[in-house]
Amino acid sequence: MRILSGIQPSGTIHIGNYFGMIKKMVESQNDGELFAFLASYHALTTVKEKELLEKNIFEAAVNFLALGMDPEKSTFWVQHDVKEVLELYWILSNHTSMGLLERAHSYKDKVAKGINANHGLFSYPVLMAADILIFDSNIVPVGKDQIQHVEMTRDIANSFNHHYNTDILVMPEAKVDEVVATVPGTDGAKMSKSYGNTIDMFGTKKGVKKQVMSIVTDSKELDEPKEWENCNIYKLCELFMNDEELKDLQQRYATPGEGYGHFKLTLLDKINEHFAPYQERREHLINNPKEVKEILEFGASKARKIASAKMEKIRSIVGL
Amino acid sequence: MRILSGIQPSGTIHIGNYFGMIKKMVESQNDGELFAFLASYHALTTVKEKELLEKNIFEAAVNFLALGMDPEKSTFWVQHDVKEVLELYWILSNHTSMGLLERAHSYKDKVAKGINANHGLFSYPVLMAADILIFDSNIVPVGKDQIQHVEMTRDIANSFNHHYNTDILVMPEAKVDEVVATVPGTDGAKMSKSYGNTIDMFGTKKGVKKQVMSIVTDSKELDEPKEWENCNIYKLCELFMNDEELKDLQQRYATPGEGYGHFKLTLLDKINEHFAPYQERREHLINNPKEVKEILEFGASKARKIASAKMEKIRSIVGL
Repeated sequence: MRILSGIQPSGTIHIGNYFGMIKKMVESQNDGELFAFLASYHALTTVKEKELLEKNIFEAAVNFLALGMDPEKSTFWVQHDVKEVLELYWILSNHTSMGLLERAHSYKDKVAKGINANHGLFSYPVLMAADILIFDSNIVPVGKDQIQHVEMTRDIANSFNHHYNTDILVMPEAKVDEVVATVPGTDGAKMSKSYGNTIDMFGTKKGVKKQVMSIVTDSKELDEPKEWENCNIYKLCELFMNDEELKDLQQRYATPGEGYGHFKLTLLDKINEHFAPYQERREHLINNPKEVKEILEFGASKARKIASAKMEKIRSIVGL
Repeated sequence: MRILSGIQPSGTIHIGNYFGMIKKMVESQNDGELFAFLASYHALTTVKEKELLEKNIFEAAVNFLALGMDPEKSTFWVQHDVKEVLELYWILSNHTSMGLLERAHSYKDKVAKGINANHGLFSYPVLMAADILIFDSNIVPVGKDQIQHVEMTRDIANSFNHHYNTDILVMPEAKVDEVVATVPGTDGAKMSKSYGNTIDMFGTKKGVKKQVMSIVTDSKELDEPKEWENCNIYKLCELFMNDEELKDLQQRYATPGEGYGHFKLTLLDKINEHFAPYQERREHLINNPKEVKEILEFGASKARKIASAKMEKIRSIVGL
């Protein structure tokens, strides 16, 4: 079973990204053959500055490798190092009706939000279809907002297969995790960079402390008993503590004497403790960009082998 | 000065194609550095049968080589052998507004004609822009219906150059031949495959004779004097005869005794005589597909060298 994951290289990551997506992706290496790529071509639809794009790609590579992406077990590469995907994208474009693309929610949403409607944004589902189909992906783990794109991929693949009377393109399935841990941000809303309520995963000690200390709570005093239910600090602690530790924390909430500041420091310790080993590996990689480059090139060569064999077959079907 | 010509590989060619386009393209090899490619990716927007596409590409290669395309002097290749163009196409897509594409006449026309609107057809001007820009083309000879596409190419190139504060993309100029020889078909309307009024260039002797004999004339009898003005046979003879020959023919029109059938046979002789040397070269190539393949591969290697050097620069500008 082949699992395909595209990673939007979007700079700084926060613990919401980690528990919402990265952890699962890393764990999926045990469920099947993971193909994971840093979606540099897709990033171009929104990131139009050279330095930022390069930085984002490098940081995403470093972060995912630090967090457990295993380049031997899985195939991990940068999208634009396997250019075959663009040829499939063009071929599929000729089997993608305009109506299908015009109905894409994500495009309509972006346009509604006033994002300048360019052709890259519009045609991005066709590139995503090519990403998925070129690797015979069986499973595509996605958020709910991306289910439609996997359905579009199936529509396009069906249309191609039907036209050329073939089964060369393998139908992928979207895998939506129904029990996505919605990680609360420091203000209690869903943690998201765009809300400015994040706790960064690999921020500076000082920066992360500041973020944790800014978690919004009620205004109960030190000498009042407090309620752990619905407390943002507690909810975040749930991600890092086992049952015993959580029981202990509930006890501290119920017992007057400590304030929210104390609980925040407990949370901060847990965060630092949890990510310390990753942080170490990450620093090693940051200081050895050549090693990162080699890992990505190794992944690209594995991916390219599969993609080019697939394209040879597809080309022969269409007559190129 | 670099001239870029894309050739739609559309199967059988007729003398309207020759005098309208091919002859000029071959002659343009003396005006500058000609880059001419068989537009296989573009063909996919309409030709969706393997055998037909392969046949069309091979025949177009053979025809152009037979008619004087010089693979040493010029650069002559099949589009899909230089895949770099698709990467530029994707990059440019992110600098192409949807509004620009939606205003393309050719797309609107095709949709109005009931051609199934697919994404390949819609985005084809972006691919054309990439074709032009990747080779720093200065001049793009086009028909009037394609002027808009060269203007779109300029718009896209300007938008890219402006965004990245560069002049990497060279502005192309459309070159429209104002005195296009409108070659009449056998029914007097413009010669066009879709009107079924063509005289094929490399048809069978029998087939071409049948086409010539079907030229529509008035119904004057053998013993009546005839008018050469506005006669379809005469108009076609103008393409093949010098002034002296034409004067002689006018004389024959004015003198009773001969009928239109005689003039048609005169035209047929001139056609056969004109294309005989090409026909010979063409037959040689048809019987030596390996030679054709090698010529195209040689052209692709020349084109690829330029395209990949250009893409290296462009990639570094965008951060890929």
